[in-house]
Amino acid sequence: MAVETHAWRKPVRRIAFLVFPNFQALDLAGPLDVFAEANGLVPADDRYEIVVIGPTPDILQASNGMQLVPDICVGAAGDQYETILVVGGPDVPTSQPDKRLVSYLCEQALHVRRYGSICTGAFYLGAAGLLNGKKATTHWQAAPLLAKKFPSVSIDPDPLFIYDEPLITSAGVTAGIDLALALVQQDFGSGISLAVARKLIVVAHRLGGQLQYSPSLVVSKSGNEKIERFKTHVERNIRDELSNAALARALGISFRHLSRLVQDEMGITPIEYIRRARLDTAREVLANTKLPLKVVAHESGFGTVEKLSRAFKTRFGVTPIQYRSSFGS
Amino acid sequence: MAVETHAWRKPVRRIAFLVFPNFQALDLAGPLDVFAEANGLVPADDRYEIVVIGPTPDILQASNGMQLVPDICVGAAGDQYETILVVGGPDVPTSQPDKRLVSYLCEQALHVRRYGSICTGAFYLGAAGLLNGKKATTHWQAAPLLAKKFPSVSIDPDPLFIYDEPLITSAGVTAGIDLALALVQQDFGSGISLAVARKLIVVAHRLGGQLQYSPSLVVSKSGNEKIERFKTHVERNIRDELSNAALARALGISFRHLSRLVQDEMGITPIEYIRRARLDTAREVLANTKLPLKVVAHESGFGTVEKLSRAFKTRFGVTPIQYRSSFGS
Repeated sequence: MAVETHAWRKPVRRIAFLVFPNFQALDLAGPLDVFAEANGLVPADDRYEIVVIGPTPDILQASNGMQLVPDICVGAAGDQYETILVVGGPDVPTSQPDKRLVSYLCEQALHVRRYGSICTGAFYLGAAGLLNGKKATTHWQAAPLLAKKFPSVSIDPDPLFIYDEPLITSAGVTAGIDLALALVQQDFGSGISLAVARKLIVVAHRLGGQLQYSPSLVVSKSGNEKIERFKTHVERNIRDELSNAALARALGISFRHLSRLVQDEMGITPIEYIRRARLDTAREVLANTKLPLKVVAHESGFGTVEKLSRAFKTRFGVTPIQYRSSFGS
Repeated sequence: MAVETHAWRKPVRRIAFLVFPNFQALDLAGPLDVFAEANGLVPADDRYEIVVIGPTPDILQASNGMQLVPDICVGAAGDQYETILVVGGPDVPTSQPDKRLVSYLCEQALHVRRYGSICTGAFYLGAAGLLNGKKATTHWQAAPLLAKKFPSVSIDPDPLFIYDEPLITSAGVTAGIDLALALVQQDFGSGISLAVARKLIVVAHRLGGQLQYSPSLVVSKSGNEKIERFKTHVERNIRDELSNAALARALGISFRHLSRLVQDEMGITPIEYIRRARLDTAREVLANTKLPLKVVAHESGFGTVEKLSRAFKTRFGVTPIQYRSSFGS
């Protein structure tokens, strides 16, 4: 009889969030508040129903200490959801994911309309095989490890979220709010998602991607002595031209040899490494001083404001001036 | 003996959050994550210790449905905190605040280094008398009611937070993250707060204040027929000049009479009302179309791009182009 009654109702928008011990509270609370605010603006029979699913019914402690009671445990969660999202947590990239949640994800991915992750939740999707052959993103800090663990995934560490339907993955922490706003926009249009953004005091579309938040430099695999000398030399001479010939001379090895070494150890060319070191220097100077752009360009070795601005915009999606107004003190 | 052991320890940074049924989860989770991330970057003996205090030890449901277990109930919370912050919730402005939390705030304000609120948590501070004679802010939607309930407070609805020491109040919801970053900056400097912002994928300093998120128009107290005709006339003729004489002619009353009426009912002059109506029109056109600024200026009755830009920047702290990139679709 219950089934017949349900048949008269419009299909509801049920969203499940998967959580686990030491999850990042903001990964959950941000998107939850987006969906809850949308509920205040849409017809009553078209509202989201949200369920927070834990590995067990026990209280979970978030990484910030907050204590959460899951609405239901995964064994009793059933398969009535339209959307499933996994949150992240600081130890997710380097620890074993909860097997109950992974197998639930595997099963449910066949039934749901869309599934996704916030922040390092992407490692759960990877473990469930749901990233294979897809485009995805995650927290900038975890992107290299995600790429290493799941080599068949095409990972872009820059966008705030990537919607490669039915998969949606977001960048770090608060990018989960951007992801949830995109789902609200898909479901109810941009008018509703804009109203939700205004209510929560977030912008509907952020300027630039995730890369503006992360350090540009890559770490080398080993502590190779020549690589360390190369890095130190770049750091100490960042204002100078740093030509191939000058580098080879200063380090006492051929540029060809250096180039092979840097590529093997860091996965990028020496020129790209120098460009990123210059960008990081420029960002430090922009954030911590009020020096004019001309001086910033000189201090970081770009030489001209034009070269600095072009490289900056290409990598971070914002201009040096926009960056300074967001991160300067 | 316990006391003596404690005497050897550096004084810890204890922060208490006050929560209650139907609180806004993001008001709590955002700042909590800021302090927790800062803990990963500072010396172990200088870390924040955070306690979430509820009216009772019972599970609390947030407005988004999330179920939280407070760390302690207010009766057992003691007076060992350096900072006390109250979160907001959707029904706080129009309901009776929890008396146990209000009297705890009253007592503790005498001992703590600083106290404050996130979003509509300001109503709790008001009820405890802690806003009297101070400058404060709250969610844009609740600002008029806060001003009415606590007339001795100087309320500015624009800033993302106001630090009138020892009182710190923040604008709506995610502005709690901005508030927490400001406290981390005060405690540990801008290097640490910048690193926390980058980890959570938020900017350290947002462009513009809260007003860019709120509708500009004020509601009239009563449904006065002349006021309604004035509003409709402005809405229908927003592209035109709307001079005092033309308005008086169109509405069939003297401008002096109209002016008194509008001021009594809405607390602003007719000219200010028209300016805000133009700004709201400009924002709608900016967000929903790709029309050039010249056309936006015409459609909203500002006439020239220069006049539009000046009025826009003055009220919202951002240019029309910056607004479009944040809120346009």
